[in-house]
Amino acid sequence: MAKRVMRKMRRKGLASMAVQTVANTADATGSTTPAPDLGPAAALSCRECGERFPLGPIFACVSCFGPLEVAYELPAGGPEELRRRIEAGPKNIWRYAPLLPVPADVAGKPSLNPGFTQLVQADNLARELGVTGGLYIKDDSGNPTHSFKDRVVAIAVEAARAFGFTTLSCSSTGNLAGAVGAAAARAGFRSCVFIPHDLEQGKVVMAAVYGGELVGIEGTYDDVNRFCSELIGDPLGEGWGFVNVNLRPYYGEGSKTLAYEICEQLGWRLPDQIVIPIASGSQLTKIDKGLQELIKLGLVEDRPYKIFGAQAEGCSPVSAAYKAGHDVVRPVKPDTIAKSLAIGNPADGPYVLDIARRTGGAVEDVTDGQIVDAIKLLARTEGIFAETAGGVTVGVTRKLIENGVLDPALTTVVLNTGDGLKTLDAVAPTSGPTATIRPSLEAFRAAGLATD
Amino acid sequence: MAKRVMRKMRRKGLASMAVQTVANTADATGSTTPAPDLGPAAALSCRECGERFPLGPIFACVSCFGPLEVAYELPAGGPEELRRRIEAGPKNIWRYAPLLPVPADVAGKPSLNPGFTQLVQADNLARELGVTGGLYIKDDSGNPTHSFKDRVVAIAVEAARAFGFTTLSCSSTGNLAGAVGAAAARAGFRSCVFIPHDLEQGKVVMAAVYGGELVGIEGTYDDVNRFCSELIGDPLGEGWGFVNVNLRPYYGEGSKTLAYEICEQLGWRLPDQIVIPIASGSQLTKIDKGLQELIKLGLVEDRPYKIFGAQAEGCSPVSAAYKAGHDVVRPVKPDTIAKSLAIGNPADGPYVLDIARRTGGAVEDVTDGQIVDAIKLLARTEGIFAETAGGVTVGVTRKLIENGVLDPALTTVVLNTGDGLKTLDAVAPTSGPTATIRPSLEAFRAAGLATD
Ligand SMILES: [Zn+2]
Ligand SMILES: [Zn+2]
Repeated sequence: MAKRVMRKMRRKGLASMAVQTVANTADATGSTTPAPDLGPAAALSCRECGERFPLGPIFACVSCFGPLEVAYELPAGGPEELRRRIEAGPKNIWRYAPLLPVPADVAGKPSLNPGFTQLVQADNLARELGVTGGLYIKDDSGNPTHSFKDRVVAIAVEAARAFGFTTLSCSSTGNLAGAVGAAAARAGFRSCVFIPHDLEQGKVVMAAVYGGELVGIEGTYDDVNRFCSELIGDPLGEGWGFVNVNLRPYYGEGSKTLAYEICEQLGWRLPDQIVIPIASGSQLTKIDKGLQELIKLGLVEDRPYKIFGAQAEGCSPVSAAYKAGHDVVRPVKPDTIAKSLAIGNPADGPYVLDIARRTGGAVEDVTDGQIVDAIKLLARTEGIFAETAGGVTVGVTRKLIENGVLDPALTTVVLNTGDGLKTLDAVAPTSGPTATIRPSLEAFRAAGLATD
Repeated sequence: MAKRVMRKMRRKGLASMAVQTVANTADATGSTTPAPDLGPAAALSCRECGERFPLGPIFACVSCFGPLEVAYELPAGGPEELRRRIEAGPKNIWRYAPLLPVPADVAGKPSLNPGFTQLVQADNLARELGVTGGLYIKDDSGNPTHSFKDRVVAIAVEAARAFGFTTLSCSSTGNLAGAVGAAAARAGFRSCVFIPHDLEQGKVVMAAVYGGELVGIEGTYDDVNRFCSELIGDPLGEGWGFVNVNLRPYYGEGSKTLAYEICEQLGWRLPDQIVIPIASGSQLTKIDKGLQELIKLGLVEDRPYKIFGAQAEGCSPVSAAYKAGHDVVRPVKPDTIAKSLAIGNPADGPYVLDIARRTGGAVEDVTDGQIVDAIKLLARTEGIFAETAGGVTVGVTRKLIENGVLDPALTTVVLNTGDGLKTLDAVAPTSGPTATIRPSLEAFRAAGLATD
């Protein structure tokens, strides 16, 4: 309980800053903002108390400090018409524009156009794991900057456009920095990304190459975040859209597209089981939201599905709460190779627990060693080189099958949210040549590698 | 002339080995190979003398030692029917199965399913370069292992399947190793990839992670290639498909899909100008072949197009020959950051010269510094982080416009064949934070990065 209160206190502080930001924006333009065109998005609504607010760059309820979500007026007309409309759309997330907080003409605006990544039928992996009901990898390494972040950032960009922001910003230690820098470049925004000053050079290069402002902050990642909160509340931050702070309600909706794509790629059918990584927990809750919308709209048959959450043991606060039967999540200090999931105090943790329990799923974690094994298992069986987060979901899938929690006779989808090229260090110590030989047939024969 | 003869001599040696390989394969199965089902592929035909050979794992003409190409019986029925068939196909290279050496049911076989990557309308870059006729980047970093090699390897895999090979192999120092390892894993082949023993660790990891055999050869890349040639001619290499040696005629056809996709994505229209990188030159010649096929089939209007070849100055034998007005290409010792294009003796160099001259195009080269600038220009304007090869094509495009060789009023397509994540070193020295500050608003204000 104390934790929930603390989270609300923090949100309260940010909420009052957010209100200030809105005021600043109005000042800057010299007039009030016109009603933004965000398509079917009708309002923001508080996830805790249900209070509604006009669409704007705010993210916390002024009454109860709960998180805000986008509320829609979903399209009229039957599911057949909507399905036809979607299938006639572009092969990216904009085919789902009727279900997203974006204007109807979004597909014509400059964007990285992420999404509609491959749903890989993983028959080789299924054989190794004993899955008989159909196993699929939703491989989001196929996005433009090779992580699912391109989806959420693309939606935040459209919100920023609607609100008249001119600078896109975020704090990041990894995938998000590149996704924001690239999206801003294409869409014609200035970008300013904040990182800890001592980030590895490879990650700095990936963030810097898109030519936006990149600011190293002398301090920890927490210091970076604290600084960004100050900036949002200050006139210096005027006209700035922080994709995962004041644009967070829109940003988060991007993860719904994973649910839409999975169902469409399965032939407009719900999977029986989905395994999703947990960082803040937002992605998991939004995938659930997306599945519920498809059911409500009649685009898929209404039948049960189970959602499983996956964490690294070195940062497993939600898994620990799940196993202990708790409703609240006790923050931890992360220590794992799965850096993109290393959020010790996941904001949506309690919602994740609700969803896992309501759908009959579970939350599980795996060790760093199991993560590495799972990355290599997926690469060896399906030719997919996943980021450590993909090692977490594949590793947890294996563990849940071994423990009899995940049913191998049911259709199962496992998310890979990022690319192994970005976390080479995880597998480097155990990925080398099988042999090193002189350039001669005798040496090759002696190495025992001929077919026989 | 002497060069052409030398190239033929080399091919002659390999050709006799290839014949041996066919004999070995027949021995191994204890019977002659049944006629392979490779769809519309009817035969192999010599590019020099036109002699035809039955489909098989051979790559050089026994009469004149010229290179062999796939000859087709292209589909009957009008262009409307074919276009409908293609458009109803999967969103990957297999939609073009009627034009490729693959069986009709190829889309159901396990494959990485590369292709149908984004054709990005590069309006920001067009503005910077002064292009008014429409500028597009064909971004092949969107392929499964993030380079165009996935296309050619996918076709080689189907040929290997048809010929009953069980091991896929190649020599490589980069993109090809990962593409072969990943494709073999998905398709259920054993793989054995040969690399120089002193390759950088990052590249070794990318090649090793897919779990196939990875053999370091004590020697240079030339030693690796020499060793592979020996292996192909030896019983030890029985049942082995070297994707770019004994499967080369099929492998090369994968590049035609770039031509098909560009035209389909332009609305079944030829671009006016295409800028293509030159390594061996194969890709450029096959893109021309693909465009010619589309014209012949009536899928696009028959009108002129110009093909431009792009090289790095540090490995520019084709560009040098073009500028000197020569028909032959004098080999060079490569010294450039564009490693994926660093082939000093490009096998298809003379054909590239023919095509550039016939179509009214040109061949040009840029310095390493210009390559880095072009990578950053593309990233800053379009949010695309290209491999050094992409820096070469964008840099050459800029140079050709400045020199008045490329017409900015015409529709122009520029190829990006790989991913910047694989050549981080090229931009690392000049890609850092714009500022490093203490976590305070005063420090931020002092850094001068606020919006105004
Ligand atoms: Zn509320
Ligand atoms: Zn011949």
